[in-house]
This record gives sequence, structure tokens and C-alpha cells, in this order.
Amino acid sequence: MFNLIEKVKDVNPLVLHYTNNVTINDCANITLALGASPLMSFSYEEVEDIVKIANSVVINIGTMNSELLNLYLIAGKVANKYKKPVILDPVGVFATEARTNLTNKLLNEVKFDVVKGNIAEIKFIGGFDVKGKGVDSFDDETDCTEIIKKVAKKLECVVAATGKTDIITDGDSVYKINNGTKKLKGITGTGCMSASLIASFLGCDKNTLECATMGILTMSLCGELADSQNPAIGSFKVNLMDEVYSLNVDKLNTYAKIEELVLA
Amino acid sequence: MFNLIEKVKDVNPLVLHYTNNVTINDCANITLALGASPLMSFSYEEVEDIVKIANSVVINIGTMNSELLNLYLIAGKVANKYKKPVILDPVGVFATEARTNLTNKLLNEVKFDVVKGNIAEIKFIGGFDVKGKGVDSFDDETDCTEIIKKVAKKLECVVAATGKTDIITDGDSVYKINNGTKKLKGITGTGCMSASLIASFLGCDKNTLECATMGILTMSLCGELADSQNPAIGSFKVNLMDEVYSLNVDKLNTYAKIEELVLA
Amino acid sequence: MFNLIEKVKDVNPLVLHYTNNVTINDCANITLALGASPLMSFSYEEVEDIVKIANSVVINIGTMNSELLNLYLIAGKVANKYKKPVILDPVGVFATEARTNLTNKLLNEVKFDVVKGNIAEIKFIGGFDVKGKGVDSFDDETDCTEIIKKVAKKLECVVAATGKTDIITDGDSVYKINNGTKKLKGITGTGCMSASLIASFLGCDKNTLECATMGILTMSLCGELADSQNPAIGSFKVNLMDEVYSLNVDKLNTYAKIEELVLA
Repeated sequence: MFNLIEKVKDVNPLVLHYTNNVTINDCANITLALGASPLMSFSYEEVEDIVKIANSVVINIGTMNSELLNLYLIAGKVANKYKKPVILDPVGVFATEARTNLTNKLLNEVKFDVVKGNIAEIKFIGGFDVKGKGVDSFDDETDCTEIIKKVAKKLECVVAATGKTDIITDGDSVYKINNGTKKLKGITGTGCMSASLIASFLGCDKNTLECATMGILTMSLCGELADSQNPAIGSFKVNLMDEVYSLNVDKLNTYAKIEELVLA
Repeated sequence: MFNLIEKVKDVNPLVLHYTNNVTINDCANITLALGASPLMSFSYEEVEDIVKIANSVVINIGTMNSELLNLYLIAGKVANKYKKPVILDPVGVFATEARTNLTNKLLNEVKFDVVKGNIAEIKFIGGFDVKGKGVDSFDDETDCTEIIKKVAKKLECVVAATGKTDIITDGDSVYKINNGTKKLKGITGTGCMSASLIASFLGCDKNTLECATMGILTMSLCGELADSQNPAIGSFKVNLMDEVYSLNVDKLNTYAKIEELVLA
Repeated sequence: MFNLIEKVKDVNPLVLHYTNNVTINDCANITLALGASPLMSFSYEEVEDIVKIANSVVINIGTMNSELLNLYLIAGKVANKYKKPVILDPVGVFATEARTNLTNKLLNEVKFDVVKGNIAEIKFIGGFDVKGKGVDSFDDETDCTEIIKKVAKKLECVVAATGKTDIITDGDSVYKINNGTKKLKGITGTGCMSASLIASFLGCDKNTLECATMGILTMSLCGELADSQNPAIGSFKVNLMDEVYSLNVDKLNTYAKIEELVLA
């Protein structure tokens, strides 16, 4: 699986983003840092044309811009039509009724390959109780593996749930990642950027579970490496981009703390 | 007052932003660096729901997006309805008639807790002559304390006016801050970020004047510290985030150049 | 020509941007780093008022926001009405029909002083075959000087085409720049920022060809200098801003690899 870090650079997939205004620059830059090419559009006029040329599509409901809600839905459907892998990032789905409604509509009308969120978002989508605050989550650090598997089975797709331990599953097989640092919650957009990383891998390989795992692993591991000298937060963000840019198979082999649970 | 730097981290308030597209990422990151949590929305659908869960609200007219002008107004009214502290940043209010009109409408229909601007913006709002250029101001460096106090009395709120000396007043008591560096005008968004800092303090404490003062002081002092090795401007911006992240009571006690003028 | 690097700081022109949401912060910061002042607006209400106070105008179709397409057109016409120099950045013009149509409409209804794009974008606008991918171009590294000159004659303006060798021409005289680094394609927005740099020079001097050349040279040379220690990509971006901020006549004289071909 670790060889995907080289494959993404060879293939250089086009990753089309329908995303929020807060972290859009970081999403573009981390896509480039990994070796893929970002593409961003807020246009109803070109949605079919531009999905056609993309290798994968990210839909992130982040800032919930009123004029874009319908565009997200159209983009998802067009991605399905042209069989482009598509990932949903349901930012703060539990925070407002509007976010819940849009997410439900997207999940009902679009077939996603991956749904990525923090553990609270994923639980909420699955119908479980959550404790959240704003668009962020409290991570109560109890093992949620079985819950996340249930959500994946319910959604019939790969689910990537981020937390102290990240859990990625298709409902049967599970990858658990124990890399990371608290500082990843100290800058905005690490969740959004994780979706960009996953979509970058999805744009170059058919194994959805491995692509989702590699996307989450890249963020958690590079965050950990970026924090190794305990920098303050501005420097940490610069380091994070540097680490994603420099990540390779050797570093993955040396530092990845990843556990695979295969269905017996 | 300096203990607010610890209180904001303990309370971790949710700071809801209705703001411009240019500096929105920096506003989110500086809110996090201080120890609060940012929340951004451009959605008419969720405005009531999301104001309800916020601890404070920023309204920044920055890029004057046509589709959002009415949203700013609604958000301000909803903030009043739910008694959430709300701050106005009337970016470039003197630059165009549209900015003047929107600002007047906001000031007439919303009760703001704080209005923050550069000295030219504040003077203009108060009906005084200004010399401005684009959305930036010339700071003629004469003492504007009495003028700013009059504006605060007129607006019936705390006014924070930034310049070579920053002036923060409720119309009676005044804080003057003499920290800073010219480089703060060399990166975009230091004004917007100051509003985020003020709102972060407002989200954790009832003393509006002290919260506004701490927000401005944090920016001016951290700018000064970030410039201590005279870095070029890209590095300065990284340093600024590092300094906000690392600011504490000790540094405030050591470096703050702040003067309090209490009404006799 | 190199003295423009000082003139832009003396004049401090206001550079009005109608641009995309991805790189807008970087465009503002590089404008400041050079010594000009950025101004961004997404408002139909203030377009005439704000163009009037600007010294130059950038129109960048980047994210093709549906609600802004008509604003770009109005802004261009108002720039012509008030005789403000205006530059077009037709991002990914070949990628979708909507981008091609908007670009054609802009070129038909607005008289641009400069059109800047990568070589594929410029060729496409001129009616030549291109190989592009998404909004990025393949640079086949054959000499395109004659083609770019033809496009400039056709468009009746200065054309700046970026690639391994940058070509800037009014259709007669040509400047070729051989500075640069591949890393400039490793961060988002170096194209958009180049347009901001050109517009900054256009805001302070009448020689359009020299202003366009200086804008492109600033980006290519500062990119090269930023890469001198082979940093990873996050650090490279910080260095790039530092280098633009620090660029001066001495560095230009020492490091610029520029060739002038004057029409015999």
C-alpha cells in the first residue's frame, strides 16, 4: 500500500474540489505537495465539462455557501455519471439542521466512494449520539471501531473517521492509525486537507480502502513528523507542507503506526 | 486584564465569522492560535441555528460580496436576539458609497458591542474628515483620543481604533497601546485578524473594553515580537502566528506598552 | 527597466483584483510584498466607485463562480471607461467551454492592456493547438516566440506567456526570461500572483511591455532565489514572499537572465 505515495506522483491525477472558502488554498497546496494537481470550481456552467476531465472529486460542505448547495449535489451526481471516485466531507454535519439536511440529501442522491469526517461527524451520520462543539468534535477516546464499521455498512462505502486513533473501514476490513499530534487540531483545514489527500490517491488507484487509509495516514504521520521539534503553530503549518512534500516509502516504513484488522 | 490570555484557552469559545474571502484562513488560524475555535458560514439557511451555538460573532464587510450583504445584516440581528457579543469591522467604509451605506445600515439595525477599524475608518464613521486610500488609511499620527472617545459615545459601544498608537475606549475610559511594527501593514489581514482576536476574548469574558483591548494588544505586541529579528515579510507572517500561539501573562507583563486613562 | 522595482514602492499603487477564492490571499500578500496595495471586491454595487480609485485592475477567471461572471465583464468595461490599465488571466481557458466562452466575451468587450497566461493558455486564445491538463499546461519547451508574437498582434495588447522560458511581447519587441524553478508549479497561485505583480507595475508606469516583463521577471527570479537552498515546498512558499519583499535593483542586475529582441 505504501507504494501509492510514488504512484500518485507518477499518475499526477486531477483532483476537482467543491469546497469551502476557508481552507481552499491549503487544499490546493497539499494536493500539489503530494504530487497530484488541484482543480477548483464554483461554476454551474462548467460542472459537467470539468468533472469529465477530473480523476476524482471532493465535496466539502464547509462554509455552506447558499449559492453553492445545489452545485454540490449536481457535482456529486455528475461524478457518479462519469464514474469518477467522489469523497464527501460533511463538515459539522451535527451543528445545524441545514448541514444535516444537505448531508442527508447528498448521501441519498449521490453514491460516494468515501465519506471522511471526525469521529463525531461519522457517528452522527450513522445515527449514533455525538458530543460536538461547533464544527469540531470531542473525541472521547473510547474505541469506536465497531460503530464506524456499522456506519460503513450502512453507507455502503469506505468510511474514514479521524481522531486520536484514526479508523478507516469498508465495513469488513479495518485500518487503524496511531500516528498524529494534537497540533493538527491547532490549525484550520487539516480535515479538509485529509480529504484532498484521499482524493489524490483515489485519482490514481482502484483500491478505495487503501487510498482512504493512505490519505489519512499521510496527514497523521506528516503532522507527527512536523511536530517533532515542538514548533509553535505557524512554523508547524509550514513544516506540515514540507513533510507531505517529502514523504516517501522509507519514511512510511519507518514511522507509520498502522494496524490492519482483516475480517476473519 | 492580562489573565484573559489564559481564560480564552480555558473557555475555548466558538467564534462565528461572517467575513471576507481574502483573509478568512488567517482569521481561522489566529483564532485557533489564541486558543478559541473558529466557525465560518456563508449560509442564509443556518444563520439562526449557528449563531445560537456561537459564543461571539464577527461581521467583516471586507470584499462586499453582493450575495452576502443581506446575510451580514441578518447575522447581526440574530446575534442581538440571542445576546451574543458582536463586533463590526467596517473595512474601507470610506472607500465607496456601497460600503458607507452598508455600514450605516448595520450600525442602525444592529447593536454592536465593539466597532474596530483603523483610525480613518473610525473617524469616518463618527462623521469626521478622513484621508484614506483604497481600504487602507493614512495615519497622520496626531493624537485622536478625544475624537475616538466621541465616536464611542455616538455609537454607544466600545471602539477600537488601530494606528501607530492604538486607542480603545468606551467613551469614558481609554486604553492606549504603543506596541507594534510597520510590518503589520505589510501583510494582508492584520486588521481582520484583530477583530477575530477581540471576538475570541469577547466569547469568554463580559468586560467588553478589556476584551477589545486585549485583542488589539495581542496583535500589536505579537507583531512587534515577530519583527524582533527583522525578518522579510513571508517569515514575519509565520512568526506572527507563532507569537500569538506562544503569548502568555509573563510576556504581556514584560513587553506590553499600555496606558490606561480612566475618567476622573 | 529594473528601476521599476523602486518606483512601485514610491507610487504604492492600488491594485484592484477580481479574482478566484483559491489564491486571493497570496495575491494580496505578494502585492504588498512588492510595495503596492491590494484591493479585492466581489460587489456589483461598488464596481464603478472602486475601479475609479484603483490604479490598475486584475481580472482572473480562476474558480468561475457563477455569480461573478457578469461582474468580471462589468469590471473590465468600467476599467476601460476610466482608462485604468487592466490585465486578464484566463485561467484554464482551454479546460471547459464555459471558460472559453467567458474569455472570448471578455476579449471582445474589454480592451485589455495585458493578457497573461501559461503558454498553453496563450496559444489556445490565439487559435493554436494546445496540450493542457486541467487548468495547467504541458510546456513542450519548443520555442514559441513567433506564436506568442502572433497572439499579441491578434489581441492588440501585450501578451505574457509563462513557461520554462517566459515570453513577453507586444507583437514587435520581445523579452525572454530564463530565470525560474520547477517548484513554482509546486505551489498554487504563482500564475495568479504574477498577474498581481504585473498589475502592480502597471499601476505606477506607462510602459506596458516593461511592466509586464518586470512582473514575470519578479516571479521567476524570486522563485529561483527562493529555491537556492532546495527547501521543501512549504518553506519554499515562505521564501518566495521573502524574496519578493527583498528584491532590489542590485539583485536584478546580478541575477536576471533576460534577453531583449527588438524588432529590426
